[in-house]
This record gives sequence, C-alpha cells and structure tokens, in this order.
Amino acid sequence: MFLKNAWYVAAWDTEVAAGRMLARTLLGEPVILYRTTDGAVVALEDRCCHRAAPLSLGTVVGDNVRCGYHGLTFAPDGSLIHIPTQTQVPPGAGVRAYPIIERWQFVWIWMGEPAKADPGLIPNWWWMDHPDWSVSRGDVFHIACNYELITDNLLDLAHVPFLHPGSIGTDYIIDFPIKTERLERSVKMTRLMTDVPQAPFHRRVKAYDTHVDRWTRVEVFAPAHVLVNSGNAPTGTGGLEGKANDVVNLQSPNEVTPETEGSSFLFYGHARNFHLGNETTTQRIRNEMLKIYREDIDMMEGQQRRMAREPDRALLAINQDAPVVAMRRVVRQLIEAERAR
Amino acid sequence: MFLKNAWYVAAWDTEVAAGRMLARTLLGEPVILYRTTDGAVVALEDRCCHRAAPLSLGTVVGDNVRCGYHGLTFAPDGSLIHIPTQTQVPPGAGVRAYPIIERWQFVWIWMGEPAKADPGLIPNWWWMDHPDWSVSRGDVFHIACNYELITDNLLDLAHVPFLHPGSIGTDYIIDFPIKTERLERSVKMTRLMTDVPQAPFHRRVKAYDTHVDRWTRVEVFAPAHVLVNSGNAPTGTGGLEGKANDVVNLQSPNEVTPETEGSSFLFYGHARNFHLGNETTTQRIRNEMLKIYREDIDMMEGQQRRMAREPDRALLAINQDAPVVAMRRVVRQLIEAERAR
Amino acid sequence: MFLKNAWYVAAWDTEVAAGRMLARTLLGEPVILYRTTDGAVVALEDRCCHRAAPLSLGTVVGDNVRCGYHGLTFAPDGSLIHIPTQTQVPPGAGVRAYPIIERWQFVWIWMGEPAKADPGLIPNWWWMDHPDWSVSRGDVFHIACNYELITDNLLDLAHVPFLHPGSIGTDYIIDFPIKTERLERSVKMTRLMTDVPQAPFHRRVKAYDTHVDRWTRVEVFAPAHVLVNSGNAPTGTGGLEGKANDVVNLQSPNEVTPETEGSSFLFYGHARNFHLGNETTTQRIRNEMLKIYREDIDMMEGQQRRMAREPDRALLAINQDAPVVAMRRVVRQLIEAERAR
Repeated sequence: MFLKNAWYVAAWDTEVAAGRMLARTLLGEPVILYRTTDGAVVALEDRCCHRAAPLSLGTVVGDNVRCGYHGLTFAPDGSLIHIPTQTQVPPGAGVRAYPIIERWQFVWIWMGEPAKADPGLIPNWWWMDHPDWSVSRGDVFHIACNYELITDNLLDLAHVPFLHPGSIGTDYIIDFPIKTERLERSVKMTRLMTDVPQAPFHRRVKAYDTHVDRWTRVEVFAPAHVLVNSGNAPTGTGGLEGKANDVVNLQSPNEVTPETEGSSFLFYGHARNFHLGNETTTQRIRNEMLKIYREDIDMMEGQQRRMAREPDRALLAINQDAPVVAMRRVVRQLIEAERAR
Repeated sequence: MFLKNAWYVAAWDTEVAAGRMLARTLLGEPVILYRTTDGAVVALEDRCCHRAAPLSLGTVVGDNVRCGYHGLTFAPDGSLIHIPTQTQVPPGAGVRAYPIIERWQFVWIWMGEPAKADPGLIPNWWWMDHPDWSVSRGDVFHIACNYELITDNLLDLAHVPFLHPGSIGTDYIIDFPIKTERLERSVKMTRLMTDVPQAPFHRRVKAYDTHVDRWTRVEVFAPAHVLVNSGNAPTGTGGLEGKANDVVNLQSPNEVTPETEGSSFLFYGHARNFHLGNETTTQRIRNEMLKIYREDIDMMEGQQRRMAREPDRALLAINQDAPVVAMRRVVRQLIEAERAR
Repeated sequence: MFLKNAWYVAAWDTEVAAGRMLARTLLGEPVILYRTTDGAVVALEDRCCHRAAPLSLGTVVGDNVRCGYHGLTFAPDGSLIHIPTQTQVPPGAGVRAYPIIERWQFVWIWMGEPAKADPGLIPNWWWMDHPDWSVSRGDVFHIACNYELITDNLLDLAHVPFLHPGSIGTDYIIDFPIKTERLERSVKMTRLMTDVPQAPFHRRVKAYDTHVDRWTRVEVFAPAHVLVNSGNAPTGTGGLEGKANDVVNLQSPNEVTPETEGSSFLFYGHARNFHLGNETTTQRIRNEMLKIYREDIDMMEGQQRRMAREPDRALLAINQDAPVVAMRRVVRQLIEAERAR
C-alpha cells in the first residue's frame, strides 16, 4: 500500500537522543530510534528476534540495544551480538535495521530495500537549517487518516477560504486561477493573486498599509514531501517574480509519514527570511499555524471515517482537483512500478 | 438487514433546528437533519459527493448546506447547486436526500426508495399531539443492541415482574393469560387482569383505595413502531371495556430506529388523559419511566453481547414468546419481500 | 485452541460466595460462579437458554439461579426447573453446568467433557492449605496475552537478571546451567547455584551473613499448572539436597487460565515454611511479588502485541529455550490428541 523505496521523516532531530529509545510505528512497522554515543541516529525494528518482545521495553547500552526480557543485545546495524546464556550467537541473526539520514532538522528513514537508499532522493529543505532563515516548527501531529488525504489537503488550497477564515482564508483566493504542472516525481500547483488585501494571518505577522501581490506555490514530491511557498509583498513591488525587497515569504516543508493505512504523522516547519531571530514572530507563526492545521485535521479525520465505511464509492472530481488527481496518479504509478520489480 | 421501505423516527421535532445540523447514523447511513427558514425539516446524506467530507462539519447557509471543506453547496433536495471554484456544476450531481415527514412530535425519515414513501404508513400516534392528552417524553436512548431485541422487549411483557419490581412489576401479571393476534403488518398482545392490587408505579401516579382492573395491550407495527396501552380503573367500573370514567390510562408510542446492526435509538412518549397539564404528574411519569427503561437497556445490551458471540446458536422458545416469534416472522417476511423485488 | 479436558483455576475460593454471582469468561465461555447454601461451588454458563440474557444479571435464589429477564430458574446442575409463565418445562432444557472442585484455596473448573473430569488430574498444591506453611497470595491478574506466554515466562527464568534486577535478579543466575526434563504431561527445569550472594529479595525476607546455595525448580504440568520452588540456605548446609534446617524456601503454585486467545487470568501463591504466621513476612513477600509480576506482565503484553501483528513469523530459538520449546510441544500434542478423538 505504501511506496517502500522512499525516504520518510521518522522524527524531529530533537526527539531522538542517546541512551533512550523513541518508539514509533512507521509504514505499519514498529521502529525504535536512538542515538549512538557519537550522535548517529539508529533505527531498528521494535521486535526482538527471540521471543518478539518489544525492544522499546529494554535499554540502550552504549551504542547497542539490550532486550529487556532475556538480555539479547543488538548492534546499531541490527545484528545480534550477545546472548547472555550462551557463548555462540547464530550467524546472521538479528533485527531489521533501517538506513537513516539526519538532515534539515529531520530524521529520515528508508523502509524499503537498503541498497536503494539514495540520499539524493531527500528533498532539499535547506531553509530549515540556514542562518538567513528562522523556522517556526510544528508539533508532531498524529492524525487518524490515510496519508494521501493529507497530501491532498496541502496541494489543494481551494479549501482555504472555507476551512480557514480569519487567518489565511480570504474570499478572493478562488477568483484567481491555478496552474498545475506534472513533473516526473512531483506535481506543482501555483496560484498568483495580484493587488489583493493582506490575509489576516499575514497582517498579524507583518502588516502593510497597501494592497499586496500574494502567491501560493505548492509542490508535492512522491510519496509525501510537500513544499508550500506562500507570501505577499506590496502591490507592484515584484513579489510575484521574487524581486521585491520587502516581503512576507514562507518556505514550509510538510512531511507526511504513514503510520498505518488509516493513520499518519505530520511534521512541518515554516521558514522565513524576515524578522530573523525574532522570537515573538516565531511563536506567532507557530501558534497560528497549529490552529490552522487543527482545522484541517478535523476535516481529514472526518473524510477518513466516511471513506473507511465505503472505500470503493466514487467521488466527484471538480476542476480544482487537477493537482490532487495528478499527484495520486504519480504515487500510484510509483507503487505499481515498485511492486512489479 | 433492515426493512428499507419504511418510516423510522430520526429525531424528536425539538432536536432539529434552522441554522444548524443534527448528525445521526440511521440504518447504517450517516445523515444530517436541519430546518429550512420556513421550518421544513431536511435530511441529507452526511457525506460530500466531492471528497467524502462529512457535511456535518460544514454550515447551514439559509436553506442550503455548505460543505466546510471546499464550499460545495447543496439544496434541500440534495442537488449540488454551487462549486465555488467553477461556474459549471455537473448535472445530476449531489448527495442523497431522504423524504421527511414531521408528525406526532417526531421527525420521520424514509431510507428506502423515495417514490414509495407513503405518508399513510406512518402510525397514528395522535395522542402525542392533542389538547386532551398530556405527554411525558423520554430521552433519546442510544442502546448497544439490535433493534429487534427492543421490539421483543416491548411486546413481551412477561419480563415485567422480574425486571421491574417496585414500579410496574407485580407477581400476579403472569397469572393472567395473553391473547396474541397476528395482523397483516403487526402483532398484537393483550393481557387483561381483573380485580388486582394497583402496581406501585400506578399508585404513585394516581392511587385508588380499591383493587383495580388492569390492562396491557401492545401492538408492534412492522418494522419497529410499538404502541403500549396500559392502565387500570377501580374493579368493576368498566375499565377493561374502555367504559370507566375514572382511569389511569397511558398511550405510549415507542419508536425503535436501527443505528447499526448492533445499536439502536429508542424514542418514546407516555400520553395520558388525566391530570391534564399537571407538571408534577408529567415529570413523575417521565422519571419513573427513565428508570424502568434503563433496567431494560442493561438486559438487552447483555443479550446483545451473548448473541454477538454465537449468532447462530438456538434459543429455547417458551409459550409466552408467541407474540415475539410472530412479530419476528412478520418483519422477516417483509424484508424478504423487499429484497425479492 | 485450548485443551478442554483439563482443570483450570476459575477463582480464588474467597471470591465465590452464597447469594451472589461471580461472572468470568474462561476459555472463551462466559461463566457464573456461586455457592449453594451448603457451601458447594456451582459453575453455570452465563447465558439463559431462553433469550440469551446473561444469568449474571439475575439473582441467586437459595441454591438456584433465576434469570433476571423472565424468571426462568436453573438448578445447580444447570437444568431448567421453572418457567414462571407455564407449568410445563421442556425436558432436557437448561444451561451448561461445569464440574467444580474446591481445593488448595482454588476453585477448579473442568470446561471439557464432564465424564472425563478426573479429580486426580488436579495438581497437588498441598502447601497452600497446610498448618506448617504460610501463604502470600497474589491478586487475580488479568493479562492481555495468550496463556502460553505466561507459562513460557514462568518456565524460562533466564529472564530474571534482566527483567527483575533489584529483587530476584542477580547477574550470576545465568552462569549456572539448567537441566530440562520432559515427563509425560509436564516439563521440569532445574537450576542449582552454589556459593552465591543472596538475592536482594531473599535478603529482605530473611538475611544470612554468608553466601548461600540457591535453587530454582520449575515444573509446568499441562496445560498451565506451574510450580516454582525457589530458595536458598547458607553455603554448604545442604540446601540443594533439601537437608538444611535453616532455609528460605518457597513453594509457589501459579495457575494460568485462558480467558480468550489473547487474554488470561493468573492466580498464584507463595507458600513458606519459615516465619510461620508472621504477617510482616506474608505482606512483604506479597508486595514484592506483585511488583515482580507486574514487570513480567508489561513484557508479556508487549510480546502479545507484536505476535498478534505477525502471528506466523518465525522466532529465533536459543539454547535456554529448551524447557519452553518442550512444554509447548507437550501442550500441542495433548490438544491434537483431544481433537483427534
């Protein structure tokens, strides 16, 4: 059901520490995450190969994990290196280890064939980790819906006036057309709005006396890496072309990770290159966004309940769904190709 | 599993208002109920045809419902009348609308073929809405059992001495025979008791110094409309023939509506033509009945747990089950006939 | 899935009383337990043969049980002896009754063919009921795992150093070999440890100034009767041969009873023949053991979660598993033999 040969965000970097385990189910598999003494992140299957006890009930001992039941000890590569009650360890025994890369404040995990774990497939969220940008992080959202309902939501911003009035929702949004581009492993949606009032959220972050030019560009990279670029600048100052000096501009990576078929994690940050280091702005963006995402979550969990009841029932596509439909096709084709191999 | 071409009570009239939605699952289908500005009740499927979002998370706008996700708007007949992001609405698109009739303080819904929604099939509970009668309404009971266990319970009052001692249960009830009549779409059970002590509940409502003649008449109309007529009058004053002037007489419609195969709603009222408008009597009947019904609910939910474990295991029929057995046959035959069509 | 022709502990003797019912699901079947007026324990199926109401919602009337719904009355042998609304009782009607024996503070139930209920198959836990021994009883543990994970746990004490440090866990345990004996319906594991420090738990119960000889002998009798004999005596005083006068010696029956495939009850007592009648010692052993068993329960419930996800996935057997593997084979063979009959 999931694209296995892909990177997913398993955790924020700050969630994973040395000496203790973080347990999380990812793509249906129970996983533990911890750091070795030199800081490297380890991801192992959370199930002892001996009697299926969760390793998360055990202990991190130095760089290794000791099962809390019978003391079997596993190295960071998952290999079983010690059985307390015998001298011989069966060759090849161990638990599954997952390739991990730490980048852009995220811990990325590869749940498919390790040999195919190409670091080049990690999206370039450089703003998350750059001195010219300040980041408002979200929480770890645990959402009771399939991951594609979340990527749908982010790619389809026609819902904004209805679900998020009072913050980013403004009536005029849907008066401007969208452009949809299907690329090899991604779909990009662009909406440019000229000479419009600032949205309430933007006003609270950085107010202009004039009307603004406003943009929303969303690109979803398969399976579930989403970049939302949004912002505005005073009308006619070149904001839509990226030439304005005085802008509200947010680069917002959203990473969606399936937990099960019907539940997902969502990690996101909002990076800005204005009001740098200003903690008030950082917290304001963070808190407003938490509220906005919670509005989305209620709706997506409602969709999930209805779809779970009648999974095969047809839906009515509307014009605005073009990017969503295209993106679902990209993902489906990649999953089918993966299975055919 | 359910008889679809039939009226069911969806709600009390007072539960449904203009400007907001009541969401309830009926016969396995999620439904919203609201009133138009002229007071008519609308029932629509609680699932947007676009992306399956629950419409109950949206808004009533005038007489219409607007989906909270993308603003698609549906008229009271379920037709899609507006898509904010496009001018053209696909012909025939919409959500299911259900025929509704408001009568006897109840909102009646027809979940089957709309063309067959004959208002003449609504039972005549005229006491619920007549100046010569006062009504003690029950709550909306949400009961974790199949609806037929509830109609069984109401039709089979041999349980009264055991489950309801101290209120309507008296030892002598089962010493009097019952008469069972099978009619076309209903089964009627009659028990007439002559010269017996008043039941404690009746004494608390209206006490007589003498023994009484007491009656219980229950008729269940398929699928799950139940009328319980019960009462008593001083011995020999003609109560059993309906000729006594001084009586305790209750006409009690009970409406059972399946939510799912294993859960149901129960709506009931107790109408009387004595102590008219006396609020103390109204509340006393209401409160005693809430207690009595809760005793039934515990038992029926217990039955459901046992039956869910072994749905096909045989039960032992006793003589007293005649009306219950007859009624289950009526319903089964109607369901089979409906499916054969 | 379960061995039916076997005794299981249904309850502690003190849990069952005259005049009221204890309801418990055993081997997947709902059962009620109560005492007759002469003190004998009765076990009946908790489901009325009439309309499947739980008898546990009814009343004990003298030696019989009356269903709370319609008053059908059942004798201690399960036979239906009274239907309030008719004079005739259908011959042979009733509910299932289970053979019961009360012994060693336990109420034993036989869920299989009654004719095969041989009292000789009840294990001899005589210490539980003997004036020369004092007993620290455990609670009734309700554990969310299959019963065999619990017998595994008790037979396989290689986990003790890892799961129970600070009480009975000491590093040296696994330095001493185990002996495994497979008998006809049981498997026995023995570990003798010479000249070792006392375990912290033993010290707190009865401390010696010297090193000790320590023993653990576990025998599991099919399907799930476990005797743990553990103790220690000052080094060289003959403790391992049972010849020492001054010993810490515990005889600990553990009775595991399946509730469902994924949940179980555990009853246990720790009998000692020192500090006789000393309430401080009784409570200390009881409280320390509650803590130790809770450590086991967390682990076993974790195993159950992992195994439920992938029931057929292979496990890695280690040398120390010999008794567990042998015992699972004994039980499987008995179940297969029972089914083949």
